[in-house]
Amino acid sequence: MILCDIGNSFYHFYENGRIWKHPSDETPKLELNGRRLYYISVKESATKRLLDHYPEAIDLEKYLQLDSDYQGLGIDRAVACKAITDGVIVDAGSAITVDIMQNGMHLGGYILPGLQRYKHLYAEISPRLDKAIHFDVATHILPQNTADAISYGIISSIVCLMERSVKNKPIYFTGGDGPYFARHFDRAMVDNSLVFKGMTKIIKESGC
Amino acid sequence: MILCDIGNSFYHFYENGRIWKHPSDETPKLELNGRRLYYISVKESATKRLLDHYPEAIDLEKYLQLDSDYQGLGIDRAVACKAITDGVIVDAGSAITVDIMQNGMHLGGYILPGLQRYKHLYAEISPRLDKAIHFDVATHILPQNTADAISYGIISSIVCLMERSVKNKPIYFTGGDGPYFARHFDRAMVDNSLVFKGMTKIIKESGC
Repeated sequence: MILCDIGNSFYHFYENGRIWKHPSDETPKLELNGRRLYYISVKESATKRLLDHYPEAIDLEKYLQLDSDYQGLGIDRAVACKAITDGVIVDAGSAITVDIMQNGMHLGGYILPGLQRYKHLYAEISPRLDKAIHFDVATHILPQNTADAISYGIISSIVCLMERSVKNKPIYFTGGDGPYFARHFDRAMVDNSLVFKGMTKIIKESGC
Repeated sequence: MILCDIGNSFYHFYENGRIWKHPSDETPKLELNGRRLYYISVKESATKRLLDHYPEAIDLEKYLQLDSDYQGLGIDRAVACKAITDGVIVDAGSAITVDIMQNGMHLGGYILPGLQRYKHLYAEISPRLDKAIHFDVATHILPQNTADAISYGIISSIVCLMERSVKNKPIYFTGGDGPYFARHFDRAMVDNSLVFKGMTKIIKESGC
């Protein structure tokens, strides 16, 4: 079987441990040869394009069962949560989503702006604050200049809240800035296949 | 004596416990009647306007002595720090500056975006994230919808980092959003006269 996670910019594919991607505004070429194609999607136009060419593709959203009180949880977040039983999942991209799982139940989650978005924000406040973010800023030493003060403010505020969510739980990072944030945690796991693990679990549970 | 803190938008005046302000692009009318006028400024054009009309006004910046290794500390932050010996000063306006003082020494500080700035940031990431900030969001309960997830992300990340800075030290809030943040701390003080207290201390110490 082939799994497909349709995001805003890319089709992300998975088969037997191999992950590849294709721009979501172009038709991906697949040779199914009788294999099943399962997908989840946050982008309708890309879903339509996939179904136009592979009408037998199966939407896993209707098979998803996640124990959660959260209203409007994105399908990609929900499916990644299915991949684990206990722990914190951080997807650090253009936005940073943080979700907490306990005994297979989704306890809730929150959303922070993505790292790269912060920079523009400071520049808009004042030209004096238009500084590059120092990703290697020390988060255990108080800053002694404006550039460090900004980098520390961004990174320490995000990491501080993540630490509070984690306590002794495992923490899983995915997304472009996942490896960066993982460096701030002793027992972090970087795993860009969480969504696909969740999809596999849904297929097994539902037998679809 | 009359004290004047010249900001980007306003002249802030102080005399005998009374505080008032005047737009920084208009000439303020003062009747000095022999009283001294002291000022600090972050806005050159407004400084020039003040000096054109009150050439005897005394710039306190040259009398400021603050024990600090911080390069480029704004005069308003530095003077507010002079007002206290131990504790944390938070100035929550278009940017949020946090400075830590210990035994009369400035240990360092950091800068976060102001609360109102965050909203635009989320809207730019995705229309789905274009939500009003819920200032009353519970910060001890995990969010269960997108609007709360965003409000929690903003407010809890800022408050989390402030709490880490504070530990058992006193915390002083100033700026437009000072009273809002103060609500999150048991022993917070809201004091919009910190800069003027610092100015008064500089005048006493220097005898200027």
